[in-house]
Amino acid sequence: MKNNKSFIVSILLITIVTLASFIGSKKGEIVTFDLSIAEDATPAVLARVMQAKTDPLSEVKFEKGTYHFYPDKAFEKFCFISNHDDVMVRTAFPLFDFDGLTIDGQGSTFIFHGPMVPFLVDGSKNVVFKNLSIDWAMSFHSEALVVANDLKKKTFDIKISKEYPYEIRNEQLIFVKEYYEHSIGQSILYDPQRNAIAYDTESYTPLTSINRVAVQRYVNDISYKYKIDPRSPEMKDIGKEQSLRVEELEPGLVRIYNHRKKIPAVGMIFTAKGDQAVNRLAPAFRVTNTIGFDAQNINVHHAGGMGLIAENSENLILDNFNVTPSKGRMVSTTADATHFVGCRGKVVLKNCTFNNQLDDASNIHGTYQEVIDVIDEYTLGVRMGHSQQQGFVIGRTGDKIGLVRIEESFYPYDEITIQSIQPLNGRYQLITFNEKLPATIESGDLIENLDAYPDLLVENCNISGNRARGLLISNPKKSVIKNNYFSTEMEAILVPVESGHWYESGNAVDLTITGNTFQDCTHSGQNRGVIRFVPDDENENIAFKDVLIANNTFNHFDNLVLEIANTENLKFTKNTITNSGTFPMLFPENPAIRIKSSKEIVFEKNEYTGKADVMIETGKSMSDILFQ
Amino acid sequence: MKNNKSFIVSILLITIVTLASFIGSKKGEIVTFDLSIAEDATPAVLARVMQAKTDPLSEVKFEKGTYHFYPDKAFEKFCFISNHDDVMVRTAFPLFDFDGLTIDGQGSTFIFHGPMVPFLVDGSKNVVFKNLSIDWAMSFHSEALVVANDLKKKTFDIKISKEYPYEIRNEQLIFVKEYYEHSIGQSILYDPQRNAIAYDTESYTPLTSINRVAVQRYVNDISYKYKIDPRSPEMKDIGKEQSLRVEELEPGLVRIYNHRKKIPAVGMIFTAKGDQAVNRLAPAFRVTNTIGFDAQNINVHHAGGMGLIAENSENLILDNFNVTPSKGRMVSTTADATHFVGCRGKVVLKNCTFNNQLDDASNIHGTYQEVIDVIDEYTLGVRMGHSQQQGFVIGRTGDKIGLVRIEESFYPYDEITIQSIQPLNGRYQLITFNEKLPATIESGDLIENLDAYPDLLVENCNISGNRARGLLISNPKKSVIKNNYFSTEMEAILVPVESGHWYESGNAVDLTITGNTFQDCTHSGQNRGVIRFVPDDENENIAFKDVLIANNTFNHFDNLVLEIANTENLKFTKNTITNSGTFPMLFPENPAIRIKSSKEIVFEKNEYTGKADVMIETGKSMSDILFQ
Repeated sequence: MKNNKSFIVSILLITIVTLASFIGSKKGEIVTFDLSIAEDATPAVLARVMQAKTDPLSEVKFEKGTYHFYPDKAFEKFCFISNHDDVMVRTAFPLFDFDGLTIDGQGSTFIFHGPMVPFLVDGSKNVVFKNLSIDWAMSFHSEALVVANDLKKKTFDIKISKEYPYEIRNEQLIFVKEYYEHSIGQSILYDPQRNAIAYDTESYTPLTSINRVAVQRYVNDISYKYKIDPRSPEMKDIGKEQSLRVEELEPGLVRIYNHRKKIPAVGMIFTAKGDQAVNRLAPAFRVTNTIGFDAQNINVHHAGGMGLIAENSENLILDNFNVTPSKGRMVSTTADATHFVGCRGKVVLKNCTFNNQLDDASNIHGTYQEVIDVIDEYTLGVRMGHSQQQGFVIGRTGDKIGLVRIEESFYPYDEITIQSIQPLNGRYQLITFNEKLPATIESGDLIENLDAYPDLLVENCNISGNRARGLLISNPKKSVIKNNYFSTEMEAILVPVESGHWYESGNAVDLTITGNTFQDCTHSGQNRGVIRFVPDDENENIAFKDVLIANNTFNHFDNLVLEIANTENLKFTKNTITNSGTFPMLFPENPAIRIKSSKEIVFEKNEYTGKADVMIETGKSMSDILFQ
Repeated sequence: MKNNKSFIVSILLITIVTLASFIGSKKGEIVTFDLSIAEDATPAVLARVMQAKTDPLSEVKFEKGTYHFYPDKAFEKFCFISNHDDVMVRTAFPLFDFDGLTIDGQGSTFIFHGPMVPFLVDGSKNVVFKNLSIDWAMSFHSEALVVANDLKKKTFDIKISKEYPYEIRNEQLIFVKEYYEHSIGQSILYDPQRNAIAYDTESYTPLTSINRVAVQRYVNDISYKYKIDPRSPEMKDIGKEQSLRVEELEPGLVRIYNHRKKIPAVGMIFTAKGDQAVNRLAPAFRVTNTIGFDAQNINVHHAGGMGLIAENSENLILDNFNVTPSKGRMVSTTADATHFVGCRGKVVLKNCTFNNQLDDASNIHGTYQEVIDVIDEYTLGVRMGHSQQQGFVIGRTGDKIGLVRIEESFYPYDEITIQSIQPLNGRYQLITFNEKLPATIESGDLIENLDAYPDLLVENCNISGNRARGLLISNPKKSVIKNNYFSTEMEAILVPVESGHWYESGNAVDLTITGNTFQDCTHSGQNRGVIRFVPDDENENIAFKDVLIANNTFNHFDNLVLEIANTENLKFTKNTITNSGTFPMLFPENPAIRIKSSKEIVFEKNEYTGKADVMIETGKSMSDILFQ
């Protein structure tokens, strides 16, 4: 009963310290929580948030300090989260249908325990988060130092600290957390000297953890009436078994056998986050259907997923929103720092640091949904292509939908507008349009929402130390990437058309990349340009238009800085390209620039002091282009 | 596009064949579907059901035939299902908020594919299901014939037919289904000669599939602020590994190693349904918050869970509702045939056959929920004790709640009434009462809903061949069990108080067991009575009252027919007890009747021709009772 009493006392204290001042408040109370709730802030915060329907809130402040949030008494809701697992979310902040709300940590740190989504924002307007650090008591990934290896026997030994409890089940290493566990699954090496992904990690990682099963009977006789997704959670394990095995040499020292790539070097930090289909369950911010989202002076030190995932929202401004590791960890968030799906209005990332997360710093795209059924003259049955897009609603009434047949054109062949959407299940929805469907529409066509792309500005950000890309931009609206610092293991900027795996829609039109420094990107072993344009269909059609790459510095250890495909009107000017000498070159035979299936590509006033023997390599059907 | 067209044609046909007759219909259309939709009936049926909000339905008929239902285009909803897993349910029949609806199969068979709930009924009144058989294309369990064994090496070999596709992953046997798979997990033997659970199966099964891990580091250092449930899906695997290993000898022939109990005999059917925490996902009928549910002439041949799970519903009458295996399978449903939680009014099972399901024929109980927090003078924070009770709402406004402290009394120490319930998450809810909470209430007390028990009648049913009990009755209202035939491997009738594992509330008051035949029950090896009363706390308090057991025939291969504990006023009269000789006796040293901590127990006018040396064995504090 002691806990109950202290809980009641907390509630009373909150009431007492509540500032009933309505100055500056549009339509609600300003509440200040103090440290009396710090042991588990969930019940008190949740009670006040849920009371807001009848007793409006305009601001929630926290006396500066450290607050713990446990899931046990949290609000729970099943959520389809784009580019994450679809899970029962627990949160102390179910911020639904607010109009004007500020959460001000006043410099506080919130420590979360187990699978929780710190902030679940839906259907709101003008929400502001500021002056807050977010971390977890136990991480959703695990780290261990490589302390020995045997290149002949192809084993390596890792030292696991008490921060990462583990057990060995049937020779498999399992890391156990609060209310969560993970296997090795997805893994990568960090270089603790550089506090970044290890050079050439692709030669070593991910660990080759899967074999095909040797025995499988009658499984292929199972007949499915409809298209299946072998990567979906319910089918992903078919035909696969674990190939690694581990052995404990002494407490905290584990030997890993059966890795088929290069054996990790002593001194590297081995990081693992478990099976891909189940390891994205707790992003720090989840924002949907919201207009006006500001985050200022926020530190996200960790998340079991992304730092921020925003869907179908409008005008999102992140200023000094930093994703950085804490507590000596190599890894910050276990997926992208930020990610925007179907967002419109302005999306701004400025003065942000995105370090050491296990996926892109940002990914901006829409969704392609596949036409399955033409139900009637106005109605389509559409399918979500990737299991992590399940439940995604492509737009709202009146939105302009493009009909796309990728193999014919990267741009829509027709446009119609949404009347209504009826999601039947995570994979399948009925969409009714205001106009009659064109007679030519057929199963396999894709739809994308042409209104649900943003004006994008990424300015003055530091993007480094992370796995994967810096920016992944699939945005046919204006995008400006300005004065940023990139040091990423894959492309600094990837501009794709991606319709067959992730079903992330969009291309690029009106893209400006200027004033940035690209320091030793693509160092992990993939043969790709620092900036790369790539559609996923091999043809001569134009996918990307009107690109300016100007006044950037490429301080690159390797040759290939720019890969262009299917692009029209790209100007590359006043850029400085040098060879940094930081690492041994991985692909010294590469040109500096590779171009195919493109036109109106211009280079002028650039300065090159790199090591490429060939400056520009062009595709067969193209004439030579001069590097100037 | 062909499929789309046939779909449109189907819709048109439905419209044409729709009988617009409103004769006998209270408030809606009578729709008849014909076989044009049989290939996948989901889209057409779902469309009409969902349209019912604006275009009411009173009856849905099906031209007699076989209809397939696929999940791909089904309606989806996350459901907490009592005594099942909490899952995303897909269904073609989301029957929400109907008032007066009949589903008449007219003799049709519905074949479901993958994880679906055929009928999801919520918040409705007067719904009737009739003349319908339900089956699945692929079962959620698997069966294989034991064809060889080696008692020295402790292995046995099973022959797996093409009906049960499988693969071997890391020496583990995995059965693969449409959109589903299962490991060996829970297993039991069937005797194909008797078409029933094998005699003495407890000596052989379940297979001993789990070992403690040998290596576990720092896991016990994880500190949890609140009570945890080691059996919950998120924690169940901690500290455990698979102990069995399998090897394929030839296609379809698999050898199983490392079983530690007796090795299954050649000729038995080995059945397996996978891990307990994930194998109850697709009951045939799921009924919640519904008043008036009739099922007539229904055959449930299979389900990945129960035949019917009803919660918080009232007046449920099952007449000729039969759970029986199809297609030569040993197993019908993979869990209980029927199960009623928190139901009230009448619950009637008559003229039913409940054969070969993998759990009880019926289980009737409420829930105990644990008091965790006293939030204020009127409000409790309560916790669901078992993970399969997550999300269960204990009652509605005005319901009488008993406050229970089991170690002091099996009956409530006080009563209060519900004002409102706010579920925060699956485990934790806030309940506000109309009355002030008693000052004596404390954490660890239980609550039960005293209004949410039914008048129960089970009459003229055949309950046999199944795993587990016949009837599990935790019902402090009138229960009549009359003229049934029981042949079950565990108790025919179990009357418990169960507050610490499943948290299934209730005891027994006013229970009549009459005119039944008990044929060779408890034959699987557990030392228990055919009828058994048992509380879960060892004390002298009365748990069960006013029981009449009369005019029954116990045709039993073993001695122990009746176990009584903590019972007051039980009369056992005009019963006939014989020894059947069907099987070798398992516990020949047993008395016929065992009694402890009870009073007013009377035996008269019974006929005994069994083999027990001792007729009645009484507990220490009791005086001798005469068997007459």
